[in-house]
Amino acid sequence: MLQLESELNQQRMRPSIKTAVMAIGGAEDKIRGRQILHSFFDRAGSTKARILIIPSASREPEVMGRIYRDIFKDMGALSVEFLSISDRQQGEDPKLCDCLDQFTGVFMSGGDQIRLCDLLAETPLMEKLRSLVQQGQLTLAGTSAGAAALGQQMITGGGSGEPPSRDLVDLGIGLGMIPQVIVDQHFHNRNRLARLISAIAANPDKLGIGIDEDTCALFERDGLIQILGRGTVTIVDPRQSTYTNYAQVGASDPLSISNLRLHLLSHGDCYDLHKCKVRSKRVNLPPI
Amino acid sequence: MLQLESELNQQRMRPSIKTAVMAIGGAEDKIRGRQILHSFFDRAGSTKARILIIPSASREPEVMGRIYRDIFKDMGALSVEFLSISDRQQGEDPKLCDCLDQFTGVFMSGGDQIRLCDLLAETPLMEKLRSLVQQGQLTLAGTSAGAAALGQQMITGGGSGEPPSRDLVDLGIGLGMIPQVIVDQHFHNRNRLARLISAIAANPDKLGIGIDEDTCALFERDGLIQILGRGTVTIVDPRQSTYTNYAQVGASDPLSISNLRLHLLSHGDCYDLHKCKVRSKRVNLPPI
Repeated sequence: MLQLESELNQQRMRPSIKTAVMAIGGAEDKIRGRQILHSFFDRAGSTKARILIIPSASREPEVMGRIYRDIFKDMGALSVEFLSISDRQQGEDPKLCDCLDQFTGVFMSGGDQIRLCDLLAETPLMEKLRSLVQQGQLTLAGTSAGAAALGQQMITGGGSGEPPSRDLVDLGIGLGMIPQVIVDQHFHNRNRLARLISAIAANPDKLGIGIDEDTCALFERDGLIQILGRGTVTIVDPRQSTYTNYAQVGASDPLSISNLRLHLLSHGDCYDLHKCKVRSKRVNLPPI
Repeated sequence: MLQLESELNQQRMRPSIKTAVMAIGGAEDKIRGRQILHSFFDRAGSTKARILIIPSASREPEVMGRIYRDIFKDMGALSVEFLSISDRQQGEDPKLCDCLDQFTGVFMSGGDQIRLCDLLAETPLMEKLRSLVQQGQLTLAGTSAGAAALGQQMITGGGSGEPPSRDLVDLGIGLGMIPQVIVDQHFHNRNRLARLISAIAANPDKLGIGIDEDTCALFERDGLIQILGRGTVTIVDPRQSTYTNYAQVGASDPLSISNLRLHLLSHGDCYDLHKCKVRSKRVNLPPI
């Protein structure tokens, strides 16, 4: 009964918003139109938003935290705080976990996804965050390293200028917020398709999502991915692949893979994760 | 009757070989195993091969011509000559056209595909060469610029580090030896998938063929593409694409395209152009 009342109170506290997970490809516009950051601000509740920034991927988390705090305060958020995490034990603190309930939006900055996940992956704090995201209780955004860490499998590094191979990509454990995908970022800007294909060859049950700079793949709760921003989101779908040499070749040998399906999507396009289909342009988005 | 006799004489002169068109992605091994160049030498008739080198893409055609002449002579070809073309009129000379009949292999060097096609595209000499290739009378190979020029549509330049767009690729008229494809070369080595996708978006009736360095897509006359060498051949097949914004967006805007099929193939793999299918590994190829 107490729990029910607490849930009702929480719902009363939360502004009526359509929550989402926003994977941003890095280098999002922070100065002019700020379209993507504004979409996060809107999805987090606009002037009723209570935003938590997690700048733990950054080497200078306080500097990074302040940059985003100033942006969201400038937009008119009700409150903006940032989390200072310097060791994994903090992510196990039950008080900190409980604090998450008060936020309507969580924003994870760029930096190094290994640092971010070394501090936070598989902690009670991230379990709580995942649970709130799955229940649609808050909007979660990650940019650059913060986007890379969204999947269960995470790209931690890799090369370009070579054909896909097992060696071309380094993988680690991510935060598991969108477990069915592997996210790559700064995507066309850093020529990362070969490494994303290499990651998908190693994880053919996953969908590859490559996000360009100043571009966002917005995961709606109904299974739609909406695209916002200046670049493309590239979807690599291996589910119809019938042939690969992955298990037979050496780590640096070129990979063979047949029948990868590739979708390149831009501002206003949608992809239906359940039907595996591109939907026609949505008309209710502002032009970029 | 005279024509029939002449054809019979030609057949008698030619060694019994299985001719092909070989598109080589540039930087093929010229020193050690020379696997790809040796395949050309074999397909051109081995020790009975009479080879013509066309080094017209190069700024230093004589130097380039001599390099390949020495290689094929060293392998034991019956004769090796190279063609010095300095203006388009030479490509209209009927005597030169007739000379082509005597060769069992023609090899087009690297350099600049624009220079090559400015000199030779749509000349009677190239019409004669195309006719001999189509009849299976000789094996034709092109490396780098010589490979880029094989299609009817040719990539003459372009960028990387950006999402596909109409502006990302420059196109021109090629030699039309394999009219149904657009060939790109130095492919993963120079991160060229985005520009090949841009070229295919502009020509959705074509198949994109991206060839890595020291790698060859060998087009058999029965419609099979065999892969040889150290890298991959990437096939971009747009025939199942159901959606693109190509006609609606500006030249530098990012392109949306759904349902591109991508095949990455490596040494020993085959692709059936008629059935649009990857075939399992051929076992009769020497390992690389």
